[in-house]
Amino acid sequence: MLEVQSAAQVLQLIAERLRPLGADERPLPLAQAVGRVSAAALFSAEDIPAFDRSTVDGYALRAADSYGCSEALPARFKLLGAVEMGADSAYAVGEGEAVYVPTGGVIPAGCDAAAMLEYAEEPGDGYVYIRKPVAPGNNLIYRGDDISAGAMLLPAHTRLHAHHIGLLAAAGITELDCLRLPRVAIISSGDELIPPGEQPAIGQIRDVNSHFLAAALRARGIEAKLCGIVRDDYQALLQASAQALAKADMLLISGGSSVGVKDNTARVIEALPGMRLLVHGVAVKPGKPTLLGVSDDNKIVFGLPGHPLSAYFIYLLFVEAALARLSGAPAVPPARRTARMAVNYPSNSGREEYVPVTLSDVDGQLTARPIFAKSGLIGLLSAADGYIRISREQEGAAKGQAVEVTLF
Amino acid sequence: MLEVQSAAQVLQLIAERLRPLGADERPLPLAQAVGRVSAAALFSAEDIPAFDRSTVDGYALRAADSYGCSEALPARFKLLGAVEMGADSAYAVGEGEAVYVPTGGVIPAGCDAAAMLEYAEEPGDGYVYIRKPVAPGNNLIYRGDDISAGAMLLPAHTRLHAHHIGLLAAAGITELDCLRLPRVAIISSGDELIPPGEQPAIGQIRDVNSHFLAAALRARGIEAKLCGIVRDDYQALLQASAQALAKADMLLISGGSSVGVKDNTARVIEALPGMRLLVHGVAVKPGKPTLLGVSDDNKIVFGLPGHPLSAYFIYLLFVEAALARLSGAPAVPPARRTARMAVNYPSNSGREEYVPVTLSDVDGQLTARPIFAKSGLIGLLSAADGYIRISREQEGAAKGQAVEVTLF
Repeated sequence: MLEVQSAAQVLQLIAERLRPLGADERPLPLAQAVGRVSAAALFSAEDIPAFDRSTVDGYALRAADSYGCSEALPARFKLLGAVEMGADSAYAVGEGEAVYVPTGGVIPAGCDAAAMLEYAEEPGDGYVYIRKPVAPGNNLIYRGDDISAGAMLLPAHTRLHAHHIGLLAAAGITELDCLRLPRVAIISSGDELIPPGEQPAIGQIRDVNSHFLAAALRARGIEAKLCGIVRDDYQALLQASAQALAKADMLLISGGSSVGVKDNTARVIEALPGMRLLVHGVAVKPGKPTLLGVSDDNKIVFGLPGHPLSAYFIYLLFVEAALARLSGAPAVPPARRTARMAVNYPSNSGREEYVPVTLSDVDGQLTARPIFAKSGLIGLLSAADGYIRISREQEGAAKGQAVEVTLF
Repeated sequence: MLEVQSAAQVLQLIAERLRPLGADERPLPLAQAVGRVSAAALFSAEDIPAFDRSTVDGYALRAADSYGCSEALPARFKLLGAVEMGADSAYAVGEGEAVYVPTGGVIPAGCDAAAMLEYAEEPGDGYVYIRKPVAPGNNLIYRGDDISAGAMLLPAHTRLHAHHIGLLAAAGITELDCLRLPRVAIISSGDELIPPGEQPAIGQIRDVNSHFLAAALRARGIEAKLCGIVRDDYQALLQASAQALAKADMLLISGGSSVGVKDNTARVIEALPGMRLLVHGVAVKPGKPTLLGVSDDNKIVFGLPGHPLSAYFIYLLFVEAALARLSGAPAVPPARRTARMAVNYPSNSGREEYVPVTLSDVDGQLTARPIFAKSGLIGLLSAADGYIRISREQEGAAKGQAVEVTLF
C-alpha cells in the first residue's frame, strides 16, 4: 500500500516519469501552430532584412558629408531622386549626394546613414539641405542586423506565441513540425451517474466531471475523447479503461467517492497493461483520494475524486502539469493577483489546502473572500474567481493578510 | 486634425463607443461553450441535489439517537440494510435504527444525519455501534442545498470557464445561447510586402503583421479573415477595407510606416461608410501612429503601425480591449510576475512606454532584462518573455527596482 504523498512529490513524479510526446506525422501550417510546441530548433535560411534598410522617412547619404552642419549652416546635398518602397535602388550615391528614402526603403549603394525628414529641407532647387549631422549607421538597419542567415530563430520545444508566429513568417517559414498534442480520454465511474441530458431519478445525479474536464482541456486546445459513464464494476471499468487508453496518452477516471469505487479504480490502474500505480492518496485538501499510474510507454492514468470541486483542483494541480510535460513545454501560466483576506480562514488539516475565493474591491483594495463550500457543493464554485493555496506549514490565512489568488 | 491621445483615453473611447455583440443564431452545445460568453442569465429548473444525500460512507440515522454515545459507550442501532448508489431508498428509519449509505447515496426517510464509517462498528449481530455522536444535518446535503430550483446559475455575459461548464452540466443544461464571436478581418498595406511563402527581392520584406495578428486572435478562439496585402494606394485600400468590413465587426489595417501610407489609412477610415476617425496618434511608445475609427453600427477599424513590435503592443493594449468589449465580457487576464530590473532603463519619451524584457533567475531572484531593440527588429522579440510598462510620469526603471512583468 502506497503512502499518501505531498503535492510536491507528485509533481516531481510527473516530471521524472513522463516524457514529451513525439512530433506530429505531418508539419503544421504556420497559421495553425499558435499554442503548439515546436518539435525542433528552427533556423533562418536568410539574412533579415535582406538589404540595408531605412528606419525613417528621410535622405540616404554619406554620414561624413553631414559633419559640422547645423540649423544655421545646413549641409547641401545634390538630390539624385527617390527610392520606391518595395523596389531596389538603382542609385550609387557619391560625395555630397543624397536620395530620398521612405521608412523601410532600400539604402542605396554608397550611403551609410539616413537623415530624418524633420531635419531636412527641399526648396526645389535640386538640392536637399540637412540641418543636423548623422553618424554612420544612424537611422538604418544593416542587412542581417535583425536575423542573420543560419541564426537560430527558436529553440526546440518552444510553445508558440503570436510573436513567434510573426518571427517565423518573417523568415519565410510557412509550416513546421510540432509535437503531437496529448490524446486524452475521460471516463466517469459511478452507479449514480447519468448524462447531463437525462432527468435524474431519486438517487441519481448528472455526470459533471467528464464535462468540465473536457471543457478545461478544450480551453488548452485539446479535444478529449469522452468515453462515457461506466458502472461501478471492476471488470467493466477495466475493460473501458484498457480500451480508452489504447488510443490515448492520458486517461482521466473520475471516480465516484465511495470506498468501493475508489478501490476499483486503484485495482484497475494496477491491472492496465504496463501501468504502475505510483500515487495512492495526495496530502492536499480537497482531493486526497487522487490516484496516479504511469506506464513505461509514457502513458498516464489519473484517478480523480468524484466530487467536482476536488476533481477540479486535482486537474489544475496535477493533470495540467502532466499535460505540460507530455506537450513538451510549460503550460501558459495562469494569472495571479495579490489580495487581502476579508476574513480569517483557519486551516489545520495537515494537508496543503486549496480554497476557492471571490474577489471584490473593498475600499480600493482587492479583497479575497473564501467560499466555505460543503464537500460536493458546486453551486458556490461558479461565483469563485480563483483560489488561494495554504501550505502545510501555515495554519490558515488571517484577516487582512496578503494572499496570492490564482485566477480560474 | 485630432490630437495625440493617451492610452487611458483610447481605452475609455473603446469602452464607451463599442457595445457587446448580439447572440449567435443558434444555441451552442455545452461542449463547445468554454471560453465563450453567455448571452442571458441561466437558471436552474430543479433542486440540486434532488434528494437528501450523504457526503460520507457511513450510516444514516436519527441524530438524537446518537447523543451521549462515546468510545467507551457506543450507541446501538438496528441495521435495516444498505442504500445502493444511484437507487432510491425504500427504507423508513425509526428510533434506534440505521441504514448503511455510501458517499452520495440517498439519505432514507426518517434520518437527519449520517455517522461516518470510521466511528462505527458492525460486528455482524444485525446491529451497528456508533462511537461518536452526530448533530442533525451532519454529513449530508439536503435537497436543493447546492442549488435550489429557480436559482440563478450564471449571470448574463459570463465568460464560461471549465467550472461553469460543470455547473451547467449539473443542472442539465446541454446547450445555451452565447454571444457571437467578433468577426475580424486583417489587411496588410505596403508596396514592400510579400506573403511569407514568397522569396523577397531586394526592397521587399515578408508580411509579418497579418500572421502574428491572426495567431493572436486564434489563441483567443477567433479565426480571423486574412484579406491579404494591399498596395499603398488610397483607392485600392479603400475598396479592400470596405469589402472586408462589410463582413466583419473589426478591421485591422496594419500599415506600412511611411508618411504616405499612414495618411492613406487615416483617409480610408474616414471614408468608410458611417465610420468616424476617433484616434489619430496615441502617446505610447512604441505605437504612436495608431489610428482608430468606430461606426454607429458598432464596427471598429484599427490602423496599426507597420513595425511588428509596435503593432504587437497596440494589439495587446487596444485591440484586445476592443475584442473584450465586443465579446461582452473581460478577456482572460494575462499572467504577470514581479521581477527586479537587471539594469537601468532610462525613459523620457513623454509617452507611456512598453519595453519587452527577458526573465531569468539571478541568485534566486526573478530578474527582468529589457531588450533594447532597434525600431523594426523582431529577432530579439522572440526571446522576450513579456513586457514592462513605464508610465508617462516615471523616468524609466532603475536597476534593482521591482517591476510588474506582463507575460506574453
